[in-house]
Amino acid sequence: MAEVAARTVMLAGGVGGARLGHGLQAHLGEQLTVVVNTGDDLERHGLLVCPDHDTVMYTLAGIDNREWGWGIAGETFATAEMLERYGEESWFRLGDRDLATHIVRTARLRAGERLTTICRDLQRALGVRAAILPMTDAQVRTEVLTEDGWLEFQEYFVHRHQAPTVTDLRFRGIEDAAATPEVLEALEASELIVIAPSNPFVSVRPILAVDGIEAALQAARARGVPVVAVSGIVGGKAIKGPADRMLVSLGHEASALGVARQYTGVADVFVLDNVDETLAPAIEALGLRTVVTDTIMVDDAGRARLASAVLAAANVG
Amino acid sequence: MAEVAARTVMLAGGVGGARLGHGLQAHLGEQLTVVVNTGDDLERHGLLVCPDHDTVMYTLAGIDNREWGWGIAGETFATAEMLERYGEESWFRLGDRDLATHIVRTARLRAGERLTTICRDLQRALGVRAAILPMTDAQVRTEVLTEDGWLEFQEYFVHRHQAPTVTDLRFRGIEDAAATPEVLEALEASELIVIAPSNPFVSVRPILAVDGIEAALQAARARGVPVVAVSGIVGGKAIKGPADRMLVSLGHEASALGVARQYTGVADVFVLDNVDETLAPAIEALGLRTVVTDTIMVDDAGRARLASAVLAAANVG
Repeated sequence: MAEVAARTVMLAGGVGGARLGHGLQAHLGEQLTVVVNTGDDLERHGLLVCPDHDTVMYTLAGIDNREWGWGIAGETFATAEMLERYGEESWFRLGDRDLATHIVRTARLRAGERLTTICRDLQRALGVRAAILPMTDAQVRTEVLTEDGWLEFQEYFVHRHQAPTVTDLRFRGIEDAAATPEVLEALEASELIVIAPSNPFVSVRPILAVDGIEAALQAARARGVPVVAVSGIVGGKAIKGPADRMLVSLGHEASALGVARQYTGVADVFVLDNVDETLAPAIEALGLRTVVTDTIMVDDAGRARLASAVLAAANVG
Repeated sequence: MAEVAARTVMLAGGVGGARLGHGLQAHLGEQLTVVVNTGDDLERHGLLVCPDHDTVMYTLAGIDNREWGWGIAGETFATAEMLERYGEESWFRLGDRDLATHIVRTARLRAGERLTTICRDLQRALGVRAAILPMTDAQVRTEVLTEDGWLEFQEYFVHRHQAPTVTDLRFRGIEDAAATPEVLEALEASELIVIAPSNPFVSVRPILAVDGIEAALQAARARGVPVVAVSGIVGGKAIKGPADRMLVSLGHEASALGVARQYTGVADVFVLDNVDETLAPAIEALGLRTVVTDTIMVDDAGRARLASAVLAAANVG
């Protein structure tokens, strides 16, 4: 099947978005814009770390560490070991190469530059063809409510290994966060919008909560741009991360159907895995057209195949 | 010869001070305080780098890179390579382990801590027995006047490989720099003061120019504490760095005698190398008692030997 390259905007979190983004970039090149969640960002050792942006950037640059599923290929930890010798907290360990990203970003932010400008320069330096845009230049910090009270996202996600049960979410700073001109222009020019197989609550929802983004998405839909969402839940389990447990603890169903329910009124097409085929009628009943395909991206071929299916799903619409 | 361990304060720059400091620490342990020049400090990639402090710290911690004569043993440059990929200036290259020092220091400074407090913690974490004190917590920046105008010290020293001729010096910020309580207490309690074989102009002079330090040194002398200066010029050449050329371009003689002239009225004893023995009478004529010995520190034995000679020189005084 031959798809026409279309100006595509994908809303994404980390790993799932990075893999599908890599597949889409292979088809679309510069036509692809990825809008990434920044609610997971954190400061470590005085440096701003943007885990979702950086995972997508390293993956689209082709330097992602396939063995670990995060970080940079060939990464080393000499600085981290020395930081630990100095008694610095070590639960969020930064690799030597990765640190360069945070060092440059932090220095330039302190010099008054915009996060978006800095990220675009970093991407270009690494040869990324797509544009990866932070959802906002403002500081938004996702927090989760657990039996231990409100926790910063990475405290929950990395330090506590997602063990606490999440019963509520909030995005600190979201009231003051506005969409950037770059994000709005990309959505205005878009011919296709994709919602990555990312966590609906902590990856996609913060993006849509930024002032101006959901309105721009709805404006695009109103002019006929299809929004294709991809399920990150396969066979009732999250491919990566705590989305399955979060669905349950937030009162939903840990299934592709549970994910689809988060996207009614936002998406037009829902892509789910072959193993979840029986859920398709219930999802169609929500008003979403379904596409059933192999959504597992174990290698480049898998990434390109799912990207192809997503583009085809939009074209048939 | 058995010296009695004495509370000793050494004023020092980088490599020469680090080596003699290592030798003195072997004799004196916690009795040694090294007051280091901070006029060579600089900001790289948004991080505060303190070359003299760190050279002394790594050396006294026993992790100095003996092969290179600077930095940390076994150092790697993964972060630096990535920084270069991002287009960052690469003339002042920071190693991965070394970077941890600058990262922690910068984060804690931004959090409002004093440079002295931070440095002491870093030293203790590395097992340094002596105390290494920045000459001040204030920002002082040495600049050198050349045919290209005023240059920041590291721009001259590292970037331009000390090629420009230095015709004047200034210490930007020195008017607002005061000695710390730690430096003043060390000088008040001192039984011996040593001036390291460091550059008299850009290592020792900024320390003495900090408000309170020379006065405290003179107060110590007034109560009989000997000040022993060691020549960093041997056979008319600087063991390391541009001190020999600076002596000439600033209107002095590139010799141990030229160095000794910088310390009249400050030091009581002058230690010079065997090869410069013929200069001893002229130095004595300046009012400095001389000690002629082997001042070259090629290994631990050499460091301990010179330290021993310095301590003996004071005891005989």
